[in-house]
Amino acid sequence: MNFKMIRYILGNVLKAEGVMLLLPAVVGLLYQEKSTWAFLLCAFLCFLTGFFLSFKKPKNPVFYATEGYVSVALCWLAMSLFGALPFVVSSEIPSFTNALFETVSGFTTTGASILSDVEALSHCMLFWRSFTHWIGGMGVLVFILTILPLRTGSHVYLMKAESPGPSVEKLVPKIQNTSLILYGIYSALTLLEMILLFATGMPLFDAVTISFGTAGTGGFAVKNSGLADYAPHLQNIVTVFMILFGVNFNIYFLMLIRRWKSILKSEEIRLYLGIILASVAVITGYIYNIYGSLSAAVRHAAFQVGSIITTTGFSTTDFNTWPAVPKVILVTLMFVGACAGSTGGGIKVSRLIIFIKSLGTELFHFSHPHGVKKVKMDGNIVSDNVTRSVHTYMAAYILIFVFSLLLISLDNMDFESNFTAIAATFNNIGPGLSAVGPTQNFGFFSNPSKFVMIFDMLAGRLELFPMLILFSPYTYKRC
Amino acid sequence: MNFKMIRYILGNVLKAEGVMLLLPAVVGLLYQEKSTWAFLLCAFLCFLTGFFLSFKKPKNPVFYATEGYVSVALCWLAMSLFGALPFVVSSEIPSFTNALFETVSGFTTTGASILSDVEALSHCMLFWRSFTHWIGGMGVLVFILTILPLRTGSHVYLMKAESPGPSVEKLVPKIQNTSLILYGIYSALTLLEMILLFATGMPLFDAVTISFGTAGTGGFAVKNSGLADYAPHLQNIVTVFMILFGVNFNIYFLMLIRRWKSILKSEEIRLYLGIILASVAVITGYIYNIYGSLSAAVRHAAFQVGSIITTTGFSTTDFNTWPAVPKVILVTLMFVGACAGSTGGGIKVSRLIIFIKSLGTELFHFSHPHGVKKVKMDGNIVSDNVTRSVHTYMAAYILIFVFSLLLISLDNMDFESNFTAIAATFNNIGPGLSAVGPTQNFGFFSNPSKFVMIFDMLAGRLELFPMLILFSPYTYKRC
Repeated sequence: MNFKMIRYILGNVLKAEGVMLLLPAVVGLLYQEKSTWAFLLCAFLCFLTGFFLSFKKPKNPVFYATEGYVSVALCWLAMSLFGALPFVVSSEIPSFTNALFETVSGFTTTGASILSDVEALSHCMLFWRSFTHWIGGMGVLVFILTILPLRTGSHVYLMKAESPGPSVEKLVPKIQNTSLILYGIYSALTLLEMILLFATGMPLFDAVTISFGTAGTGGFAVKNSGLADYAPHLQNIVTVFMILFGVNFNIYFLMLIRRWKSILKSEEIRLYLGIILASVAVITGYIYNIYGSLSAAVRHAAFQVGSIITTTGFSTTDFNTWPAVPKVILVTLMFVGACAGSTGGGIKVSRLIIFIKSLGTELFHFSHPHGVKKVKMDGNIVSDNVTRSVHTYMAAYILIFVFSLLLISLDNMDFESNFTAIAATFNNIGPGLSAVGPTQNFGFFSNPSKFVMIFDMLAGRLELFPMLILFSPYTYKRC
Repeated sequence: MNFKMIRYILGNVLKAEGVMLLLPAVVGLLYQEKSTWAFLLCAFLCFLTGFFLSFKKPKNPVFYATEGYVSVALCWLAMSLFGALPFVVSSEIPSFTNALFETVSGFTTTGASILSDVEALSHCMLFWRSFTHWIGGMGVLVFILTILPLRTGSHVYLMKAESPGPSVEKLVPKIQNTSLILYGIYSALTLLEMILLFATGMPLFDAVTISFGTAGTGGFAVKNSGLADYAPHLQNIVTVFMILFGVNFNIYFLMLIRRWKSILKSEEIRLYLGIILASVAVITGYIYNIYGSLSAAVRHAAFQVGSIITTTGFSTTDFNTWPAVPKVILVTLMFVGACAGSTGGGIKVSRLIIFIKSLGTELFHFSHPHGVKKVKMDGNIVSDNVTRSVHTYMAAYILIFVFSLLLISLDNMDFESNFTAIAATFNNIGPGLSAVGPTQNFGFFSNPSKFVMIFDMLAGRLELFPMLILFSPYTYKRC
């Protein structure tokens, strides 16, 4: 293990976070808030730590998959620790555990909050919370490291470790360029949403923060009522953008280079949109009576479905009061998640496709032991390695889920709250049902349970392996 | 597909069921009950159908895995349909859906009941309910077919399809003899429990039926209070036997031939007993206050843990009123299940061991791409085929579970009831929590939901593949 390289990368990431912490300080200055100094202090501390860690460039540039995964896990942990400091230093969230929970929830684009009164926070804090969503959505390491002169190949390992989905596709031969293209699309879409929301009547501060939350599929709102009090057309704009940010970003690249055929071939996007349409239709039928008009029922159904499947977690209504069928559909969507290569969390549609198809292949081989049938996706054969990694992912997913559920049940809450609390944090959604429903918060959990969920949020965002490899004894043992 | 062979086997199984239906008729005669004629009539019908189906022995004896799985699935369906008839004919359970649910619950050793008043049933009906547990526990086909002159190899396919666990071990070279040995152990243990219960004060009828339910890990009781009203020492005897019937029967064979070393090497049995001990200890701590004395707390904890992990489903107390931690432990045990090669249901301890170990191997290979590490169990390498079949099983398990949950949620019950209803039927346990807790029953579900659970009980008992292969289009298509 090349620990020196890991230290060097960690240092650079912290330097970058130090710079990013200046942005909320600017917001604080504009609003003349006294919490501004907390950001200035923390930015300085963060930059200084990063500076010392990255002072000496390591001579040995060896960097493999293990180093990539460990770097990513450590960087996300360190970023969360430093990101939580302003909340504590300013006393706006005095408990460190709570501040860490809130920051991890931000970076991992979960959006689960421990705050019962969001509006009590100052503007700079609210801005930082939402900005962490935007940073975490696309993954920060790959971006930062495009500017670092690393050995060829290192970037691929970092990108593999940080990007969501069962496999990483290079859009252009050089991975740094791929990452720049993705960030370009990400920024452009975010800006477009901000402009649309602001132009059609949302206050500027809200438009900016809500757009950050939508883009990263985060879910932190700046009002206690979530998005319930905004005008219907604003909610609809957010619905559209949530669904757009749940799409594999490669699709947008293919659009830019006009490869329409490849887009139509994508099974993932078809299934993703199909699930959304079907869920909205069924839920609308069930909640029509509650809202009285078809347009309101469709709007609320589409918003909640889009919010949950993309694992954003915004809400326009308290879906905890809906009938059982819509609730079970939403719980199922929590696990489905968005497309691979998007900013959304969850298991991911493409992983589920491979999972189900590999089951079909097994059934085929059972009846036809000498027949040959391979798992195919978008017309291409899925390699056995990818299939196996999907199965390993599911195994790890189930074990972490059950273990987390057992641990937080020590808090003696009801089963529905416990189950959906883990589902909502592990899949990076935000709200669950019952005691963690959209009008509730996670503040009542004990500190040990909060740490379980902090682990789950990080493991969920990084798709399990970086966290598992960080804590696996094999990683540090020689073969 | 050799449909003639399947028809022939089906006919023989129905003939055997016709004979078995005479046993409750004898009980009815002893108690001079008027439902006796229902059993006589149904026995006649069942035997007659079997007689016609098996009249002509097929000339082509070709019989492969597909035929084995389809035979097993069809036989279990047919046995359930004929087994439900006496309830309907006698009008003791007038609704056919309810009667079928009750019979499938019996044969699959689930023990979930639609009856709110068990004691209203006549003795012959109670006997038949419990006797179906005993028949279904060890699997009826293999036994019946030991007397049929089939082509060499056919028995292995049938046994593989009907026996629980990721792989089938032959104890002796001839599979028919293996099956006879297993049935011998099964009968001897059942008889021992009957004698012990009767000798220490349980009424004979109760001792016989409860022993049937324990042996098959079923869970139908003959009193509305379950096993709560029996003396503590009788409850303890049942606890011990439940745990014994959850052990891999190969262990008893190894005891008979004095291969103690092989027994000690078994990782599954060690983990199984370890889980039981740990669960009992933790639960005792949590429920001590409820029962006031250590002995009562241990007794109830041990009974419920033994009942749930072996998927029997008897209860001595309403564990739905226990605190959250014991409840979550019990829900987890529902999925763990008993040992492979026992009469218990659930995922099975050995399958979980392979599942977890294969995850460890993947983590190892990640850090050591050129290293070699194989999944080992009891000191032997687990073949890639077994590992893959375990992963396929888990994939199918998850998909069936989620799909069932979605379907029964149409009944608009709460999440805890829905989730544990599927967990309790799919894992062949019986009671769940909340509306399907140990003092409740499944009668309130709609008929479509009952059919979903009937499918789940059968799929769970037969370990998914026979039911999947029966309904897979690949089975009937040429390659």
